[in-house]
Amino acid sequence: MANPTAAMLVVGDEILSGRTRDANMHHLASRLTETGIDLNEVRIISDDHEAIVEAVEDLSRGYDHLFTSGGIGPTHDDITADAVAAAMKAPIGVRDDALAVLKAHYDRQGTEINDARRRMARIPDGATLIDNPISAAPGFTLRNVHVMAGVPAIFQAMVGSLLPTLTGGKPLRSVSLRIAHGEGDIAEALGALANALPDVSFGSYPFIQNGLYGTNIVARSSDPTALETAVDRLVERFPDAQL
Amino acid sequence: MANPTAAMLVVGDEILSGRTRDANMHHLASRLTETGIDLNEVRIISDDHEAIVEAVEDLSRGYDHLFTSGGIGPTHDDITADAVAAAMKAPIGVRDDALAVLKAHYDRQGTEINDARRRMARIPDGATLIDNPISAAPGFTLRNVHVMAGVPAIFQAMVGSLLPTLTGGKPLRSVSLRIAHGEGDIAEALGALANALPDVSFGSYPFIQNGLYGTNIVARSSDPTALETAVDRLVERFPDAQL
Repeated sequence: MANPTAAMLVVGDEILSGRTRDANMHHLASRLTETGIDLNEVRIISDDHEAIVEAVEDLSRGYDHLFTSGGIGPTHDDITADAVAAAMKAPIGVRDDALAVLKAHYDRQGTEINDARRRMARIPDGATLIDNPISAAPGFTLRNVHVMAGVPAIFQAMVGSLLPTLTGGKPLRSVSLRIAHGEGDIAEALGALANALPDVSFGSYPFIQNGLYGTNIVARSSDPTALETAVDRLVERFPDAQL
Repeated sequence: MANPTAAMLVVGDEILSGRTRDANMHHLASRLTETGIDLNEVRIISDDHEAIVEAVEDLSRGYDHLFTSGGIGPTHDDITADAVAAAMKAPIGVRDDALAVLKAHYDRQGTEINDARRRMARIPDGATLIDNPISAAPGFTLRNVHVMAGVPAIFQAMVGSLLPTLTGGKPLRSVSLRIAHGEGDIAEALGALANALPDVSFGSYPFIQNGLYGTNIVARSSDPTALETAVDRLVERFPDAQL
């Protein structure tokens, strides 16, 4: 059976303007690969209601899972929860269970829960809360859409709360080999190998070091035996390959 | 007049699997911001012909410019040029001008130009070549689609060759202020300010340091006067703000 498919949607003006580098994509990609869920697409869009609605409609239909990052805090630019509710045609309002979580957290801190903080309890009807062990304000899962925070430490904690509840497939394994030849020299042999071993995908990533061309070949498969065969064949064909 | 809009398409199994972090997005985002071209969307998709065709069709229609990164080398997984040609309904084949550039490069190196390397001269009819001062194999511009390499050093060199040929708008400027309060404390005042100054966009990015909550507020505008006003108001409202 094929692995479940997934897309990620990053809501982030600050990434599109070049101010910050996204860290959540790399974290989610690695964790999904371990879990056996295939991340097939990532979109990064700006903090714009219509853009979020359109992307959520499109990606939640196109993949088994959609993971979102960013835009669920208390400020005016935090519009993801409402946009996801609109895209999924679910009513949204302050929900008692989410408010109770926030209240307990702010009580412990001795902080008042004002209107801005109350907004973080806006959760669509029918959604399940995603635990946030760091700053309490929960994420949520609405059908196949998993809505999480953008702050990397909180995103990672939410991914940690969420992934054990999802059914994965076969983890995708990969082996990387470093070859002291440019891509142009190995392309033909590598293409023939890719044809001969359809259960393995071969990626080829050229590099230049000290003025010399080299290539990293990455073989990926969810079938450990096929991957072993691929490595044997690569080493046989390229005796200078370094694991 | 509004700035030109842009999208970026990253062709990259190796990013979706978590093996590598994308570096090209951050570089392009920064350079476009300086140039006055608004990057509104980034998509990362796998090395799959249909997926590339669909994304190129969609994004080249939706934005003034589409920049692509990755998949234009000599190996079997380099399929971007053909997919872009298919999406834009342009014929593609080995082109004499591109082949001449490659031949001159490999002659200097004393390397033979084999079939794999000849593939890098496959350029759609009507496209303009993008100069590659590092490894010769050119990128190309076909109408509003700019096709560039994935290796970061080469991508950056191609962006450097390309951007001076494009007409930009007003550079987007930004100012970042650090405030020693959590988002929940400043959300109301910040929202009011955002309403009062429609020519400035305010982003709010919470952080936790030594157990204390703080917020970075980023004000962005292509109007330097409006941006100055925004900073004055922010400092007035949040006297502890640090530039």
